[in-house]
Amino acid sequence: MTENPKFAVIGGGSWATAIAKMLGENLPEFFWYMRNENAIEHIKNHRHNPNYLSSVEFDIKKLHLTSDINEAVAYADYIIFAIPSAFLSSELEKLTESLKDKIIFSAIKGIVPETSLIVGEHFNKIYDIPFENIGVITGPCHAEEVALERLSYLTIACGDDEKAKIVARCLSGNYIKTKISDDIIGTEYAAMLKNIYAIAAGIAHGLGYGDNFQSVLMSNGIREMKKFIRKVHKMKRNINDSAYLGDLLVTGYSVFSRNRMFGNMIGKGYTVKSAQMEMSMVAEGYYAAKSAYNLNLGYGAKTPIIDAVYSILYEGKSAKKVFEKLTDKLD
Amino acid sequence: MTENPKFAVIGGGSWATAIAKMLGENLPEFFWYMRNENAIEHIKNHRHNPNYLSSVEFDIKKLHLTSDINEAVAYADYIIFAIPSAFLSSELEKLTESLKDKIIFSAIKGIVPETSLIVGEHFNKIYDIPFENIGVITGPCHAEEVALERLSYLTIACGDDEKAKIVARCLSGNYIKTKISDDIIGTEYAAMLKNIYAIAAGIAHGLGYGDNFQSVLMSNGIREMKKFIRKVHKMKRNINDSAYLGDLLVTGYSVFSRNRMFGNMIGKGYTVKSAQMEMSMVAEGYYAAKSAYNLNLGYGAKTPIIDAVYSILYEGKSAKKVFEKLTDKLD
Repeated sequence: MTENPKFAVIGGGSWATAIAKMLGENLPEFFWYMRNENAIEHIKNHRHNPNYLSSVEFDIKKLHLTSDINEAVAYADYIIFAIPSAFLSSELEKLTESLKDKIIFSAIKGIVPETSLIVGEHFNKIYDIPFENIGVITGPCHAEEVALERLSYLTIACGDDEKAKIVARCLSGNYIKTKISDDIIGTEYAAMLKNIYAIAAGIAHGLGYGDNFQSVLMSNGIREMKKFIRKVHKMKRNINDSAYLGDLLVTGYSVFSRNRMFGNMIGKGYTVKSAQMEMSMVAEGYYAAKSAYNLNLGYGAKTPIIDAVYSILYEGKSAKKVFEKLTDKLD
Repeated sequence: MTENPKFAVIGGGSWATAIAKMLGENLPEFFWYMRNENAIEHIKNHRHNPNYLSSVEFDIKKLHLTSDINEAVAYADYIIFAIPSAFLSSELEKLTESLKDKIIFSAIKGIVPETSLIVGEHFNKIYDIPFENIGVITGPCHAEEVALERLSYLTIACGDDEKAKIVARCLSGNYIKTKISDDIIGTEYAAMLKNIYAIAAGIAHGLGYGDNFQSVLMSNGIREMKKFIRKVHKMKRNINDSAYLGDLLVTGYSVFSRNRMFGNMIGKGYTVKSAQMEMSMVAEGYYAAKSAYNLNLGYGAKTPIIDAVYSILYEGKSAKKVFEKLTDKLD
């Protein structure tokens, strides 16, 4: 490693902005790619992202802002992807620079819709990146609280410990504590699956279920997640670590979670389409539900919550009826 | 068993009222003891408890209300205690009726201050009740949601399965699902320990920590609870079952929890004494923290959260400083 590893952040949303803030505390310079040229101009002139976490002020001397993804990729050894999974494929299509020998960290919490793979697997299978060059940055972490410098804990997972440590060091600070892990598959699946449970929590809330039920749902959710992940990749892990249970809780209990909000609208009677239009975006958990359901047709884990969410979102089943049946399967 | 087992509820608070409501759905009659004679008169005249869950209407033909605990105990085979643990000893001192051959279920979530025992152990050691006649009724369950008939799940634990099933049957209904368990020690310790973690959650909130930290605290809390309970009573249990994790979550995430509220005041700078005076009651977790801390001096489980709460509540340490140190012990 060099004394100051070369980083690029890919994405202009709130999580990308939070990551740029953390890197800015530790690095003398890094690249930051976003599509939106107006936002880049705004950051250059006003030192903050106009659209996300706008209270965060950047030392712009450190920022190499660019709307050319190839420029960012060419510079960096470590590339952190923090864009919605639905946009990953189209961004990667722009690449003329090779990803060979690059170290790819995913801060994306979802499934790539085109391949139904989690991001690490997508880079491995489609771009031939070896797993020792793939990592995951996972919460529990609302970007908004990073902006407020409220203490948050990140888990940095990578097949190669040394790379995890470098990324951890470049993100750590007064308000960020980091922990490294070698469970890149499990942490990324957890980050993806928790969005499905957050949709379930939202549906329950929308249907009028209360806090007692919510706690039962989360308690069943973490048990279900454990079974699912064990089928995908069996290894010794404590599902109650922050990267799994903590991430589930921060999302499932957050009224700001887009996934929970989406579920809440479904529970209140919106159709899937109208809920998506109302939110003017697609919640990550929407894709995750389909992918997890289909994957599990092969695994055969007992996943009543995922099955319930899938049947509501993709089979047009009544949320009320599906949840009435689901309540008998929980304990 | 008789077709209709004879039950008595001991207590006039919100949880006792919720239990009386559940029993009223299933039994033709039962005894209900409370100290407050005005409340008894009010229930007789107006069909609801004037002080707690007053929206719940009772079929008073079913209720044998009494302010004489001996009358209730004499009648019943199954006695459900649902009073604050701090009042248990003084209530039991009134007994002239024998508890021999009675089946005692605790719906108390705390430690008996005078003996530092959980309620089941207290009845076993002080009153010689054998463990097969002792049971626990545990949540996750806010009484307020029972009043609203929002779906809730109870775990009924007893050394004797048959007795657990009878109690479960008498509490179950449209909005109450029950599950039986043989882990009377573990479920009762969980119900007691969760109040300490709820105090910790409140302190963190009062100090200005956010949702990211809260999820890390709960994730560490359940791991700590698992270690502690394993030391007390080793058996096969899934700590993520609703009776353990669910109960922790419903309390830790509730803004209505008295324990969380108490912690919140401490975090905001109230002294322990002034917080207690302000609340005009002592939160269960206050006693639980002392008892758990002292017990653990013998067990030696790693319990940084319990230790932190103890040192704030009993050693006059600064909440801010204690939590700063605690954050380094969590992950």
